[in-house]
Amino acid sequence: MKFATEYLWFNTKNHREYVNITDTVEGIVQKSGVKEGMVLVSAMHITAGVYVNDAESGLIQDIDEWLEKIAPFQREYRHHRTGESNGDSHLKSLLVHHEVIVPITDGRLDLGPWQQVYYAEFDGQRKKRVIVKVMGE
Amino acid sequence: MKFATEYLWFNTKNHREYVNITDTVEGIVQKSGVKEGMVLVSAMHITAGVYVNDAESGLIQDIDEWLEKIAPFQREYRHHRTGESNGDSHLKSLLVHHEVIVPITDGRLDLGPWQQVYYAEFDGQRKKRVIVKVMGE
Amino acid sequence: MKFATEYLWFNTKNHREYVNITDTVEGIVQKSGVKEGMVLVSAMHITAGVYVNDAESGLIQDIDEWLEKIAPFQREYRHHRTGESNGDSHLKSLLVHHEVIVPITDGRLDLGPWQQVYYAEFDGQRKKRVIVKVMGE
Repeated sequence: MKFATEYLWFNTKNHREYVNITDTVEGIVQKSGVKEGMVLVSAMHITAGVYVNDAESGLIQDIDEWLEKIAPFQREYRHHRTGESNGDSHLKSLLVHHEVIVPITDGRLDLGPWQQVYYAEFDGQRKKRVIVKVMGE
Repeated sequence: MKFATEYLWFNTKNHREYVNITDTVEGIVQKSGVKEGMVLVSAMHITAGVYVNDAESGLIQDIDEWLEKIAPFQREYRHHRTGESNGDSHLKSLLVHHEVIVPITDGRLDLGPWQQVYYAEFDGQRKKRVIVKVMGE
Repeated sequence: MKFATEYLWFNTKNHREYVNITDTVEGIVQKSGVKEGMVLVSAMHITAGVYVNDAESGLIQDIDEWLEKIAPFQREYRHHRTGESNGDSHLKSLLVHHEVIVPITDGRLDLGPWQQVYYAEFDGQRKKRVIVKVMGE
Protein backbone atom coordinates (compact mmCIF):
# COMPACT_ATOMS: atom_id res chain seq x y z
CA MET A 1 0.00 0.00 0.00
CA LYS A 2 1.38 3.37 -1.03
CA PHE A 3 0.45 6.85 0.10
CA ALA A 4 1.60 10.25 -1.11
CA THR A 5 0.54 13.61 0.27
CA GLU A 6 1.26 17.01 -1.20
CA TYR A 7 -0.05 20.48 -0.51
CA LEU A 8 -0.69 22.97 -3.30
CA TRP A 9 -0.51 26.66 -2.52
CA PHE A 10 -2.60 29.33 -4.23
CA ASN A 11 -2.65 33.09 -4.03
CA THR A 12 -5.00 34.23 -6.76
CA LYS A 13 -4.92 37.67 -8.33
CA ASN A 14 -8.71 37.92 -8.31
CA HIS A 15 -11.27 37.58 -5.55
CA ARG A 16 -12.84 34.71 -7.47
CA GLU A 17 -10.79 32.53 -9.78
CA TYR A 18 -10.87 29.08 -11.35
CA VAL A 19 -7.53 27.28 -11.72
CA ASN A 20 -7.05 24.10 -13.75
CA ILE A 21 -4.93 21.78 -11.59
CA THR A 22 -5.32 18.57 -13.60
CA ASP A 23 -1.68 18.37 -14.73
CA THR A 24 -0.40 19.08 -11.23
CA VAL A 25 -2.55 16.31 -9.74
CA GLU A 26 -1.51 13.96 -12.56
CA GLY A 27 2.13 14.73 -11.82
CA ILE A 28 1.70 13.93 -8.11
CA VAL A 29 0.06 10.61 -8.99
CA GLN A 30 2.89 9.67 -11.38
CA LYS A 31 5.55 10.62 -8.82
CA SER A 32 3.79 8.46 -6.19
CA GLY A 33 4.17 5.33 -8.30
CA VAL A 34 0.58 4.33 -7.54
CA LYS A 35 -0.88 2.32 -10.43
CA GLU A 36 -4.29 1.46 -8.98
CA GLY A 37 -6.16 3.56 -6.45
CA MET A 38 -7.69 6.94 -5.83
CA VAL A 39 -6.54 10.49 -5.29
CA LEU A 40 -8.35 12.89 -3.00
CA VAL A 41 -8.11 16.57 -3.96
CA SER A 42 -9.56 18.68 -1.19
CA ALA A 43 -9.55 22.41 -0.43
CA MET A 44 -8.33 23.13 3.10
CA HIS A 45 -10.44 26.29 3.34
CA ILE A 46 -14.11 26.98 3.84
CA THR A 47 -14.32 29.58 1.10
CA ALA A 48 -12.93 27.53 -1.79
CA GLY A 49 -13.93 24.43 -3.72
CA VAL A 50 -12.62 21.68 -5.94
CA TYR A 51 -14.70 20.33 -8.81
CA VAL A 52 -14.40 18.38 -12.05
CA ASN A 53 -15.77 19.92 -15.22
CA ASP A 54 -14.86 21.44 -18.58
CA ALA A 55 -11.86 23.68 -19.37
CA GLU A 56 -13.94 25.88 -21.70
CA SER A 57 -13.52 29.57 -20.74
CA GLY A 58 -17.08 30.60 -21.63
CA LEU A 59 -18.47 27.87 -19.41
CA ILE A 60 -16.23 28.95 -16.54
CA GLN A 61 -17.74 32.43 -16.77
CA ASP A 62 -21.21 30.85 -16.87
CA ILE A 63 -20.40 28.90 -13.72
CA ASP A 64 -19.15 32.04 -12.01
CA GLU A 65 -22.26 34.05 -12.91
CA TRP A 66 -24.56 31.22 -11.90
CA LEU A 67 -22.86 30.87 -8.51
CA GLU A 68 -23.15 34.62 -7.97
CA LYS A 69 -26.84 34.42 -8.87
CA ILE A 70 -27.80 31.67 -6.44
CA ALA A 71 -25.28 32.44 -3.68
CA PRO A 72 -24.83 36.19 -4.08
CA PHE A 73 -22.50 38.58 -2.37
CA GLN A 74 -24.62 40.73 -0.05
CA ARG A 75 -24.20 42.69 3.15
CA GLU A 76 -26.92 41.00 5.14
CA TYR A 77 -25.34 37.67 6.07
CA ARG A 78 -25.26 37.08 9.82
CA HIS A 79 -21.71 35.83 9.39
CA HIS A 80 -20.69 39.44 8.72
CA ARG A 81 -21.36 40.40 12.33
CA THR A 82 -18.01 38.72 13.05
CA GLY A 83 -16.32 41.34 10.88
CA GLU A 84 -16.09 39.08 7.84
CA SER A 85 -17.58 40.01 4.45
CA ASN A 86 -17.33 36.63 2.74
CA GLY A 87 -20.63 34.94 3.60
CA ASP A 88 -21.27 34.30 -0.08
CA SER A 89 -17.89 32.58 -0.44
CA HIS A 90 -18.92 29.97 2.14
CA LEU A 91 -22.20 29.30 0.34
CA LYS A 92 -20.47 29.01 -3.03
CA SER A 93 -18.02 26.54 -1.47
CA LEU A 94 -20.89 24.43 -0.09
CA LEU A 95 -22.60 24.40 -3.47
CA VAL A 96 -19.56 23.40 -5.52
CA HIS A 97 -18.26 21.12 -2.76
CA HIS A 98 -14.73 21.32 -1.41
CA GLU A 99 -13.31 18.05 -2.72
CA VAL A 100 -13.25 15.36 -5.37
CA ILE A 101 -11.92 11.81 -5.55
CA VAL A 102 -10.37 10.88 -8.86
CA PRO A 103 -9.82 7.20 -9.75
CA ILE A 104 -6.32 6.04 -10.78
CA THR A 105 -5.99 3.24 -13.33
CA ASP A 106 -2.69 2.12 -14.90
CA GLY A 107 -0.91 4.97 -13.13
CA ARG A 108 -3.07 7.68 -14.73
CA LEU A 109 -6.04 9.80 -13.64
CA ASP A 110 -8.97 7.82 -15.03
CA LEU A 111 -10.97 10.83 -16.23
CA GLY A 112 -13.35 11.13 -19.17
CA PRO A 113 -12.15 13.03 -22.27
CA TRP A 114 -13.40 16.45 -21.12
CA GLN A 115 -13.00 16.13 -17.38
CA GLN A 116 -10.58 18.54 -15.76
CA VAL A 117 -9.90 19.14 -12.07
CA TYR A 118 -10.44 22.75 -10.96
CA TYR A 119 -9.57 24.70 -7.86
CA ALA A 120 -12.35 27.24 -7.34
CA GLU A 121 -11.29 30.26 -5.32
CA PHE A 122 -14.18 32.24 -3.82
CA ASP A 123 -12.21 34.52 -1.49
CA GLY A 124 -8.75 34.91 -2.90
CA GLN A 125 -5.90 37.37 -2.97
CA ARG A 126 -4.31 35.54 -0.04
CA LYS A 127 -2.47 32.26 0.52
CA LYS A 128 -4.62 29.15 0.51
CA ARG A 129 -4.01 25.42 0.33
CA VAL A 130 -5.29 22.24 -1.28
CA ILE A 131 -4.33 18.78 -0.06
CA VAL A 132 -3.69 16.04 -2.64
CA LYS A 133 -3.57 12.55 -1.12
CA VAL A 134 -2.86 9.49 -3.26
CA MET A 135 -3.79 6.04 -1.93
CA GLY A 136 -3.32 2.73 -3.74
CA GLU A 137 -0.64 0.38 -4.94
CA MET B 1 -5.46 -5.20 -1.17
CA LYS B 2 -7.97 -5.75 -3.96
CA PHE B 3 -9.09 -3.46 -6.74
CA ALA B 4 -11.79 -3.90 -9.36
CA THR B 5 -12.69 -1.43 -12.09
CA GLU B 6 -15.66 -1.57 -14.41
CA TYR B 7 -17.21 0.92 -16.80
CA LEU B 8 -20.97 1.24 -17.20
CA TRP B 9 -22.34 2.49 -20.50
CA PHE B 10 -25.51 4.54 -20.86
CA ASN B 11 -27.43 5.78 -23.86
CA THR B 12 -30.64 7.23 -22.47
CA LYS B 13 -33.83 7.65 -24.48
CA ASN B 14 -34.49 11.08 -22.99
CA HIS B 15 -32.38 14.23 -22.80
CA ARG B 16 -32.59 14.07 -19.01
CA GLU B 17 -33.00 10.77 -17.22
CA TYR B 18 -32.38 9.21 -13.80
CA VAL B 19 -31.22 5.58 -13.75
CA ASN B 20 -31.07 3.48 -10.59
CA ILE B 21 -27.70 1.67 -10.69
CA THR B 22 -27.64 0.31 -7.14
CA ASP B 23 -27.94 -3.36 -8.10
CA THR B 24 -25.28 -3.02 -10.79
CA VAL B 25 -22.83 -1.44 -8.34
CA GLU B 26 -23.68 -4.08 -5.72
CA GLY B 27 -22.99 -6.81 -8.30
CA ILE B 28 -19.57 -5.35 -9.12
CA VAL B 29 -18.70 -5.23 -5.43
CA GLN B 30 -19.73 -8.85 -4.90
CA LYS B 31 -17.78 -10.00 -7.95
CA SER B 32 -14.68 -8.17 -6.67
CA GLY B 33 -14.63 -10.23 -3.48
CA VAL B 34 -13.95 -7.08 -1.43
CA LYS B 35 -15.44 -7.43 2.07
CA GLU B 36 -14.23 -4.17 3.62
CA GLY B 37 -13.60 -0.97 1.71
CA MET B 38 -15.15 1.64 -0.50
CA VAL B 39 -16.51 1.88 -4.02
CA LEU B 40 -16.22 5.03 -6.09
CA VAL B 41 -19.00 5.60 -8.63
CA SER B 42 -18.10 8.52 -10.86
CA ALA B 43 -19.55 9.91 -14.09
CA MET B 44 -16.88 10.32 -16.78
CA HIS B 45 -18.72 13.24 -18.37
CA ILE B 46 -19.22 16.86 -17.48
CA THR B 47 -22.95 16.86 -18.19
CA ALA B 48 -23.98 13.97 -15.94
CA GLY B 49 -24.00 13.24 -12.23
CA VAL B 50 -24.11 10.45 -9.69
CA TYR B 51 -26.02 10.84 -6.44
CA VAL B 52 -27.54 8.83 -3.61
CA ASN B 53 -31.20 9.36 -2.78
CA ASP B 54 -34.68 7.84 -2.88
CA ALA B 55 -36.13 5.59 -5.61
CA GLU B 56 -39.56 7.26 -5.35
CA SER B 57 -40.75 8.33 -8.81
CA GLY B 58 -42.56 11.48 -7.62
CA LEU B 59 -39.42 12.67 -5.88
CA ILE B 60 -37.35 12.04 -8.99
CA GLN B 61 -39.68 14.36 -10.91
CA ASP B 62 -39.38 16.91 -8.09
CA ILE B 63 -35.59 16.74 -8.34
CA ASP B 64 -35.74 17.20 -12.10
CA GLU B 65 -38.05 20.23 -11.87
CA TRP B 66 -35.98 21.75 -9.11
CA LEU B 67 -32.75 21.36 -11.09
CA GLU B 68 -34.42 22.96 -14.09
CA LYS B 69 -35.57 25.84 -11.90
CA ILE B 70 -32.20 26.70 -10.42
CA ALA B 71 -30.00 25.69 -13.38
CA PRO B 72 -32.36 26.31 -16.32
CA PHE B 73 -31.92 25.58 -19.96
CA GLN B 74 -31.49 28.93 -21.74
CA ARG B 75 -29.88 30.31 -24.86
CA GLU B 76 -27.71 32.91 -23.20
CA TYR B 77 -24.89 30.84 -21.74
CA ARG B 78 -21.47 31.92 -22.98
CA HIS B 79 -20.64 28.26 -23.42
CA HIS B 80 -23.04 28.20 -26.36
CA ARG B 81 -20.71 30.40 -28.43
CA THR B 82 -18.71 27.20 -28.94
CA GLY B 83 -21.69 25.70 -30.77
CA GLU B 84 -22.91 23.72 -27.75
CA SER B 85 -26.41 24.11 -26.30
CA ASN B 86 -25.93 22.25 -23.03
CA GLY B 87 -24.75 24.95 -20.63
CA ASP B 88 -27.51 24.02 -18.21
CA SER B 89 -26.38 20.38 -18.23
CA HIS B 90 -22.96 21.42 -16.90
CA LEU B 91 -24.52 23.47 -14.10
CA LYS B 92 -26.90 20.64 -13.15
CA SER B 93 -23.90 18.29 -13.03
CA LEU B 94 -22.01 20.66 -10.74
CA LEU B 95 -25.00 20.96 -8.44
CA VAL B 96 -25.69 17.25 -8.10
CA HIS B 97 -21.98 16.39 -8.14
CA HIS B 98 -20.48 13.81 -10.46
CA GLU B 99 -19.51 11.10 -7.99
CA VAL B 100 -20.22 9.26 -4.76
CA ILE B 101 -18.23 6.96 -2.53
CA VAL B 102 -20.22 4.11 -1.02
CA PRO B 103 -18.83 2.19 1.98
CA ILE B 104 -18.54 -1.61 1.78
CA THR B 105 -19.03 -3.67 4.94
CA ASP B 106 -19.25 -7.50 5.03
CA GLY B 107 -19.14 -7.57 1.24
CA ARG B 108 -22.23 -5.41 0.80
CA LEU B 109 -22.92 -1.76 0.01
CA ASP B 110 -23.39 -0.25 3.48
CA LEU B 111 -26.32 2.01 2.57
CA GLY B 112 -29.23 3.15 4.70
CA PRO B 113 -32.65 1.56 4.06
CA TRP B 114 -33.80 4.12 1.46
CA GLN B 115 -30.47 5.01 -0.13
CA GLN B 116 -30.15 4.17 -3.80
CA VAL B 117 -27.34 5.08 -6.21
CA TYR B 118 -28.51 7.04 -9.26
CA TYR B 119 -26.92 7.97 -12.55
CA ALA B 120 -28.30 11.39 -13.50
CA GLU B 121 -28.14 12.10 -17.21
CA PHE B 122 -28.43 15.79 -18.12
CA ASP B 123 -27.51 15.58 -21.80
CA GLY B 124 -28.39 12.14 -23.04
CA GLN B 125 -29.38 10.34 -26.20
CA ARG B 126 -25.75 9.44 -26.80
CA LYS B 127 -23.21 7.02 -25.32
CA LYS B 128 -21.80 7.97 -21.95
CA ARG B 129 -19.82 6.22 -19.25
CA VAL B 130 -19.55 5.80 -15.48
CA ILE B 131 -16.50 4.32 -13.76
CA VAL B 132 -17.00 2.02 -10.78
CA LYS B 133 -13.81 1.37 -8.81
CA VAL B 134 -13.78 -0.93 -5.80
CA MET B 135 -10.91 -0.70 -3.30
CA GLY B 136 -10.52 -2.77 -0.15
CA GLU B 137 -9.80 -6.27 1.03
CA MET C 1 -4.30 -2.33 5.82
CA LYS C 2 -6.66 -1.29 8.61
CA PHE C 3 -10.36 -0.59 8.58
CA ALA C 4 -12.65 0.72 11.28
CA THR C 5 -16.38 1.29 10.98
CA GLU C 6 -18.64 3.04 13.46
CA TYR C 7 -22.19 4.31 13.29
CA LEU C 8 -23.22 7.57 14.91
CA TRP C 9 -26.83 7.99 16.02
CA PHE C 10 -28.70 11.29 16.02
CA ASN C 11 -32.12 12.29 17.24
CA THR C 12 -32.23 16.06 16.95
CA LYS C 13 -34.56 18.29 18.95
CA ASN C 14 -35.35 20.43 15.91
CA HIS C 15 -36.61 19.61 12.44
CA ARG C 16 -33.43 21.10 10.97
CA GLU C 17 -30.21 21.10 12.92
CA TYR C 18 -26.46 21.31 12.33
CA VAL C 19 -24.24 19.20 14.59
CA ASN C 20 -20.46 19.55 14.75
CA ILE C 21 -19.07 15.99 14.70
CA THR C 22 -15.40 16.79 14.14
CA ASP C 23 -14.20 15.60 17.55
CA THR C 24 -16.22 12.39 17.30
CA VAL C 25 -14.73 11.59 13.89
CA GLU C 26 -11.25 12.47 15.14
CA GLY C 27 -11.76 10.10 18.09
CA ILE C 28 -12.75 7.24 15.80
CA VAL C 29 -9.66 7.82 13.66
CA GLN C 30 -7.38 7.82 16.70
CA LYS C 31 -8.97 4.65 18.08
CA SER C 32 -8.48 2.93 14.71
CA GLY C 33 -4.72 3.40 14.86
CA VAL C 34 -4.69 4.50 11.20
CA LYS C 35 -1.83 6.94 10.57
CA GLU C 36 -2.21 7.43 6.81
CA GLY C 37 -5.45 7.15 4.91
CA MET C 38 -8.93 8.55 4.56
CA VAL C 39 -12.13 8.56 6.55
CA LEU C 40 -15.54 8.52 4.89
CA VAL C 41 -18.32 10.25 6.83
CA SER C 42 -21.63 9.54 5.16
CA ALA C 43 -25.27 10.07 6.16
CA MET C 44 -27.32 6.88 5.83
CA HIS C 45 -30.50 8.83 5.13
CA ILE C 46 -31.85 10.68 2.15
CA THR C 47 -32.96 13.72 4.13
CA ALA C 48 -29.66 14.56 5.82
CA GLY C 49 -26.22 15.68 4.75
CA VAL C 50 -22.60 15.83 5.83
CA TYR C 51 -20.42 18.80 4.93
CA VAL C 52 -17.20 20.55 5.92
CA ASN C 53 -17.33 24.25 6.77
CA ASP C 54 -17.06 26.81 9.55
CA ALA C 55 -18.26 26.44 13.16
CA GLU C 56 -19.45 30.08 13.28
CA SER C 57 -23.07 30.22 14.52
CA GLY C 58 -24.10 33.19 12.36
CA LEU C 59 -22.87 31.41 9.26
CA ILE C 60 -24.79 28.26 10.20
CA GLN C 61 -27.99 30.34 10.30
CA ASP C 62 -27.03 31.87 6.94
CA ILE C 63 -26.60 28.38 5.50
CA ASP C 64 -29.95 27.30 6.88
CA GLU C 65 -31.77 30.34 5.46
CA TRP C 66 -30.06 29.95 2.12
CA LEU C 67 -31.01 26.28 1.85
CA GLU C 68 -34.61 27.16 2.71
CA LYS C 69 -34.56 29.84 0.03
CA ILE C 70 -33.34 27.66 -2.83
CA ALA C 71 -34.91 24.35 -1.71
CA PRO C 72 -37.99 25.57 0.16
CA PHE C 73 -40.52 23.66 2.18
CA GLN C 74 -43.76 23.67 0.17
CA ARG C 75 -46.87 21.56 -0.21
CA GLU C 76 -46.64 21.01 -3.93
CA TYR C 77 -43.89 18.42 -4.24
CA ARG C 78 -45.02 15.28 -6.07
CA HIS C 79 -43.24 13.27 -3.40
CA HIS C 80 -45.96 14.33 -0.97
CA ARG C 81 -48.53 12.19 -2.78
CA THR C 82 -46.90 9.27 -0.98
CA GLY C 83 -48.01 10.79 2.33
CA GLU C 84 -44.60 12.35 3.06
CA SER C 85 -44.13 16.07 3.69
CA ASN C 86 -40.33 16.25 3.45
CA GLY C 87 -39.70 16.88 -0.26
CA ASP C 88 -37.59 19.91 0.62
CA SER C 89 -35.42 17.79 2.96
CA HIS C 90 -34.43 15.58 0.02
CA LEU C 91 -33.48 18.59 -2.10
CA LYS C 92 -31.47 20.16 0.72
CA SER C 93 -29.65 16.84 1.16
CA LEU C 94 -28.81 16.71 -2.56
CA LEU C 95 -27.52 20.27 -2.47
CA VAL C 96 -25.27 19.88 0.56
CA HIS C 97 -24.32 16.32 -0.42
CA HIS C 98 -24.58 13.39 1.94
CA GLU C 99 -20.91 12.61 2.53
CA VAL C 100 -17.35 13.82 2.81
CA ILE C 101 -13.96 12.15 2.71
CA VAL C 102 -11.42 13.57 5.14
CA PRO C 103 -7.71 12.83 4.66
CA ILE C 104 -5.73 11.35 7.58
CA THR C 105 -2.05 12.30 7.99
CA ASP C 106 0.10 11.35 11.01
CA GLY C 107 -2.96 9.87 12.70
CA ARG C 108 -4.94 13.12 12.60
CA LEU C 109 -7.72 14.56 10.43
CA ASP C 110 -5.78 16.65 7.94
CA LEU C 111 -8.18 19.61 7.90
CA GLY C 112 -7.47 23.29 7.38
CA PRO C 113 -7.61 25.59 10.42
CA TRP C 114 -11.32 26.45 10.09
CA GLN C 115 -12.64 23.23 8.62
CA GLN C 116 -15.15 21.37 10.78
CA VAL C 117 -17.24 18.32 9.89
CA TYR C 118 -20.99 18.84 10.25
CA TYR C 119 -23.97 16.55 10.28
CA ALA C 120 -26.85 18.47 8.68
CA GLU C 121 -30.26 17.21 9.71
CA PHE C 122 -33.08 18.26 7.37
CA ASP C 123 -35.86 16.06 8.76
CA GLY C 124 -35.08 15.36 12.37
CA GLN C 125 -36.82 14.58 15.63
CA ARG C 126 -36.30 10.87 14.97
CA LYS C 127 -33.40 8.41 15.05
CA LYS C 128 -30.94 8.67 12.17
CA ARG C 129 -27.48 7.34 11.44
CA VAL C 130 -24.13 8.32 9.97
CA ILE C 131 -21.47 5.79 8.99
CA VAL C 132 -17.83 6.61 9.67
CA LYS C 133 -15.41 4.30 7.86
CA VAL C 134 -11.65 4.65 8.30
CA MET C 135 -9.34 3.08 5.73
CA GLY C 136 -5.54 3.22 5.73
CA GLU C 137 -2.53 1.95 7.63
